[in-house]
Amino acid sequence: MTPATGPATTDAPATPTASARAIADAATIVRWCDTLAAVSQDDGRTTRVYLSPEHARVNAMVAEWMQDAGLRTWQDAAGNLHGIVDGATPDAPVLLLGSHLDTVVDAGRYDGVVGVLMAIRTAARLAASGPLPFALQVIAFSDEEGTRFGKALLGSSAVAGVWDDAWWDLEDGDGTTLRQAFTDFGLDPARVGEAALPPERLVGYLEAHIEQGPSLEQAGQALGVVTSIASARRFSVEAVGEARHAGGTPYERRHDALLAAAEAALAVERICRAEQHVGTVGTMSVEPGAVNVVPGLARFSVDLRGEFDEGRDRVWESITAAFDEIGARRGVTVSPTEVHRAPAVFCASALMDAVRAGIASTGETAPAELFSRAGHDAMSLGLVTDVAMLFLRNPDGISHHPDEFVSQDDVALGLDALAVAVERIADDRAETR
Amino acid sequence: MTPATGPATTDAPATPTASARAIADAATIVRWCDTLAAVSQDDGRTTRVYLSPEHARVNAMVAEWMQDAGLRTWQDAAGNLHGIVDGATPDAPVLLLGSHLDTVVDAGRYDGVVGVLMAIRTAARLAASGPLPFALQVIAFSDEEGTRFGKALLGSSAVAGVWDDAWWDLEDGDGTTLRQAFTDFGLDPARVGEAALPPERLVGYLEAHIEQGPSLEQAGQALGVVTSIASARRFSVEAVGEARHAGGTPYERRHDALLAAAEAALAVERICRAEQHVGTVGTMSVEPGAVNVVPGLARFSVDLRGEFDEGRDRVWESITAAFDEIGARRGVTVSPTEVHRAPAVFCASALMDAVRAGIASTGETAPAELFSRAGHDAMSLGLVTDVAMLFLRNPDGISHHPDEFVSQDDVALGLDALAVAVERIADDRAETR
Repeated sequence: MTPATGPATTDAPATPTASARAIADAATIVRWCDTLAAVSQDDGRTTRVYLSPEHARVNAMVAEWMQDAGLRTWQDAAGNLHGIVDGATPDAPVLLLGSHLDTVVDAGRYDGVVGVLMAIRTAARLAASGPLPFALQVIAFSDEEGTRFGKALLGSSAVAGVWDDAWWDLEDGDGTTLRQAFTDFGLDPARVGEAALPPERLVGYLEAHIEQGPSLEQAGQALGVVTSIASARRFSVEAVGEARHAGGTPYERRHDALLAAAEAALAVERICRAEQHVGTVGTMSVEPGAVNVVPGLARFSVDLRGEFDEGRDRVWESITAAFDEIGARRGVTVSPTEVHRAPAVFCASALMDAVRAGIASTGETAPAELFSRAGHDAMSLGLVTDVAMLFLRNPDGISHHPDEFVSQDDVALGLDALAVAVERIADDRAETR
Repeated sequence: MTPATGPATTDAPATPTASARAIADAATIVRWCDTLAAVSQDDGRTTRVYLSPEHARVNAMVAEWMQDAGLRTWQDAAGNLHGIVDGATPDAPVLLLGSHLDTVVDAGRYDGVVGVLMAIRTAARLAASGPLPFALQVIAFSDEEGTRFGKALLGSSAVAGVWDDAWWDLEDGDGTTLRQAFTDFGLDPARVGEAALPPERLVGYLEAHIEQGPSLEQAGQALGVVTSIASARRFSVEAVGEARHAGGTPYERRHDALLAAAEAALAVERICRAEQHVGTVGTMSVEPGAVNVVPGLARFSVDLRGEFDEGRDRVWESITAAFDEIGARRGVTVSPTEVHRAPAVFCASALMDAVRAGIASTGETAPAELFSRAGHDAMSLGLVTDVAMLFLRNPDGISHHPDEFVSQDDVALGLDALAVAVERIADDRAETR
């Protein structure tokens, strides 16, 4: 199969230009991103979490867009939305394309969403030029961020068949369990296993996503190929001291849980910087939480990422040693509980080659290669099939923030690259047959 | 007037013993403290804030106890509960006795409450032995802690006539303004001035309170006389950085509001310890508050106390200089807003002498003299009349905590001391006439 899509490459270092089809699709996608950003539990900002009314609403909206594009749609047993374009034969294998529709609190409008919408337009575009040797299945994952239950990648974990029954008792901020939230959403917890796709049917998983960092912008490139996705662990930490009167209690008698947590947060930063890792304390709350009471309890999260699992675990050991020292010195017990662990995922070389070919077809002769510190649904899929990712330039690297941006021009280039990458995978299969 | 109450003092260093009347009253008071502790907005713990349904309920309960004790009762224009025993003549001046009925979150059962109940039993006891040269007016203040609106001493500020109209726009955690809360409680904001007592009618204000610190226990004494009450300032601080993706954003690009707040909290501790002051960060919240987002905003409180206003202000200048340095280094703006300021209050020597005489009447030959780092309603009253305070031993100095305690024996001794102190003030007035 020859690449019918995308502009011809030239030897001169030209500014990459997208095809007319991709330019039109990118305009649609940017408009859709704006539409979806308005589906939020919060007024004036975008917050859309797993198993919420907003989750149901975007699934319905995106399903309609999928159907308009000629895809057959369904929602799976974990609330993920699927749309499929059949392959040349009924028993054809399946190439997955996708990303997620859930968001962080006060989110931007492109993280995840743009990848889902690019997958839909790519499936529609390729279907128009006749059947491929595999079905193209687009998945809009329901929970990648972990905003509601602290545990990330719930949606793709179900699809990868690595659901852990221990998660059922996870609670959201209101004390609702994941089990109850499933039922409230109209899903049957007992059937979550049905969301798992049979690995033997899968060709692989391709995901387009904004970079969520400044590397592509710094390199002056619109697109990049991801080589691996960071190893990550997340912890919920509780510091227990003693609530006391803020006036009457001398320092020697204090066991201030917040000050212990403050030192712990700074230790995470200090150790991660020294070890070239990234650690973030993203949440912090104290009890009783009164201006005139020494805090007796502080709760905070730690998000730790590194390129390799071993380095990540070594850094976490240093962090817990620091927590222990702080706790012992202050008479505060500092207890971390792991809530998420994802091994580093290395992208498959054949799929990376396809993505490189896709980027090259846009006129970029030396595509940037990136390591992703951000986690992605591809991490879960990487447990059961080959994965690769196409990154889109993210101005100033701002993500998880309303100012998050990707240009329509870059989305158009990404669409051309993605279509060529899929065609290249199809060609590879034809050759190896 | 001779002290008819309290046991006779002896020359031998005897263990102080309370009168039979005080022992009976103390048993009643401890039972009442238990009853009031159950009036809470929270299940299983005591939290009772200004202008809440629980505020209305305890006012009604305590008014009934006042009436049973022979006091005439009313609620004033700021929600404070009053009960009065008339003096010998209709134009007699007024000696105020009291403390507060509101609490911190997850409070103990004695802070404030025990002083109100001791005042009621003392007024009843003294009324039984005939009219005094002044009326005895018991005030159960409605807001001392500042739990709901951040601003402390609202109840006693109204009584002292120092209400500030700027406070009307203060908001509670749900965004309800103080103005709205007044209306919801059935009070008229326009009439708050009517709660002010005419200073020229006042003899002074006497308050009994648990120490909220370990000094009396360390001295082996049940009771102590307060010499002055700490100078205090409270601030609400906002640190504004930038919310970013926790994985994709390298440290050089971060402006982490929580890490700035963590450093700020530790700076408060470091500077206050070095300067023999007490500073506490009692609240902390972050936004957006997601495990995988670098915090863009952190809010926290600072409560600062010292013996003298000048020292307190000098320490605050050092703290703000540290905040500025932290903010500049991290690219985070750290902005404090003052929400409360109370000058140091020095107790009146004549009233202190009366309290000393009261303590001496229980058999304690060298009463402990204490500086109170904790704030009290006496601070507001000190702006318009003479004040003095009687402290009760507080085991292990635990206060603002469910384990807060005062023994029934010590309450009984305090009752005897308080009655003698009031009689002594009456005697002093008789002599100076």
